[in-house]
Amino acid sequence: MSNRRKFIQQTLLGTTGAAFLPILGSAAGNTMPMANESAPLNIGIAGYTFAKFNIEQSIAMMKRINILNLSLKDIQLPVNSTDAQIAAAIAKFKEGGINIYTVGVIYMKTKEAVDAAFIYAKKVGVTMIVGVPSYDLIEYAEQKVKEFDIKLAIHNHGPEDALYPAPSDVYNRIKNLDTRMGMCIDIGHSLRAGTLPENAIKLYKDRLFDIHIKDINAAAKDGKAIEMGRGVINIKEVIGSLRKIKYAGYCSIEFEKDMSDPLPGIAESIGYFKGVMNG
Amino acid sequence: MSNRRKFIQQTLLGTTGAAFLPILGSAAGNTMPMANESAPLNIGIAGYTFAKFNIEQSIAMMKRINILNLSLKDIQLPVNSTDAQIAAAIAKFKEGGINIYTVGVIYMKTKEAVDAAFIYAKKVGVTMIVGVPSYDLIEYAEQKVKEFDIKLAIHNHGPEDALYPAPSDVYNRIKNLDTRMGMCIDIGHSLRAGTLPENAIKLYKDRLFDIHIKDINAAAKDGKAIEMGRGVINIKEVIGSLRKIKYAGYCSIEFEKDMSDPLPGIAESIGYFKGVMNG
Repeated sequence: MSNRRKFIQQTLLGTTGAAFLPILGSAAGNTMPMANESAPLNIGIAGYTFAKFNIEQSIAMMKRINILNLSLKDIQLPVNSTDAQIAAAIAKFKEGGINIYTVGVIYMKTKEAVDAAFIYAKKVGVTMIVGVPSYDLIEYAEQKVKEFDIKLAIHNHGPEDALYPAPSDVYNRIKNLDTRMGMCIDIGHSLRAGTLPENAIKLYKDRLFDIHIKDINAAAKDGKAIEMGRGVINIKEVIGSLRKIKYAGYCSIEFEKDMSDPLPGIAESIGYFKGVMNG
Repeated sequence: MSNRRKFIQQTLLGTTGAAFLPILGSAAGNTMPMANESAPLNIGIAGYTFAKFNIEQSIAMMKRINILNLSLKDIQLPVNSTDAQIAAAIAKFKEGGINIYTVGVIYMKTKEAVDAAFIYAKKVGVTMIVGVPSYDLIEYAEQKVKEFDIKLAIHNHGPEDALYPAPSDVYNRIKNLDTRMGMCIDIGHSLRAGTLPENAIKLYKDRLFDIHIKDINAAAKDGKAIEMGRGVINIKEVIGSLRKIKYAGYCSIEFEKDMSDPLPGIAESIGYFKGVMNG
């Protein structure tokens, strides 16, 4: 993040955290200066990218690519970890200079899982969960959002997802709920489900809390993960939409190819996204 | 290279090769359709990037990053190689799908070294050498250019280079020679020598045969190699200049950081360059 941007966020937000910016940005009558149309976007990593690595290895890769914002995945720190385990993990990330800005994606199929997710998020110290609650748990999750004052960003997962294939499947179920109920648009799964992510970003801007960026090799159900810039997603349009809505959350790369040796592909993707941003 | 671009080059050039395009492009009264202002540029790799790796390892890295154009460095195939050694190396690159579009950088401090370089280039099968002849050998090298019909692109190497610190130090010595005498602008060394590469590209367009792209962390003599996009070179301006002059040669990434483990940095740099190009 640029110093200028950091300054603006800190000035506007105090201690509430950058994750609130999208909400502020869409509030009626809000005329505060936000990200402008050429401002850099904040880049992060979605923890699933490091599914085959431990915390130390993940930190090393993040430092190498100089991206220090993380959406922590439960693979690396299980939701049922003890307080001591959570504290130890947080200490490692802190020492590595990593900013854990959210946890997720966390699946919630029972009330107990919803409870556990919010308790976990609070212990980790984040103000947002990226998650997937079953339909019948959405209202219960909303109660927890209010109780903990922790936002919930529901994640779309493409055509084979029985619950939330496309961004609209998230939006339509949360649009009338508490404004801290929102979405994490996964641009790859969105396109696989037939929704241009650059359109979804604009349509659902008032509830867009997080975004998973990636590329896929075909705009079809069986589109596969590929290095950003080599596939079919129009990253320039995605960035254009994010700037248009003055998105001030994180754009987290989720790289799901070569998962045993992902660093070159992550690096190429990061480079591409930054290049389009500066192009 | 896109099929469209390949088609245009093949149509325009027959068998003379893409490397002649810059010369054709600058010929007075030339109105043939060349690269337009949003056309993709051809990306390659400068072989020095792989200084610590053998041919097989280099090919594997090039395939991984999907960049298949190579400026072959004598580290991997010495100038004094036997015909059999050259043939074996060429076969490996061909099998790997690699297009060797030039050789270099080759230093030439004696007439014998000039002779050897041109014989080597002919055996490798390229129509251009990126090289560094001593001043007193420039005229002799020009004779060889005519004799072999192989172009010579002289490479600038920054403030500590006694011969060609800046692009102007090359241009001023070849501008009145045979039009096959030209330059390979190294954008990093150019900026370290105080010349904005985006300006040099426009100034010396009629003799620009090749370009080494990279980034450096400071616009100063001691500026160090860094992943493209993290440093001080304005890649957007460089690409703008290349498009303005309708450059149709190769832009070869020369990555000189982390040389024992360069793949992530090369990948990030490639991604960044492509991103700016598409941004």
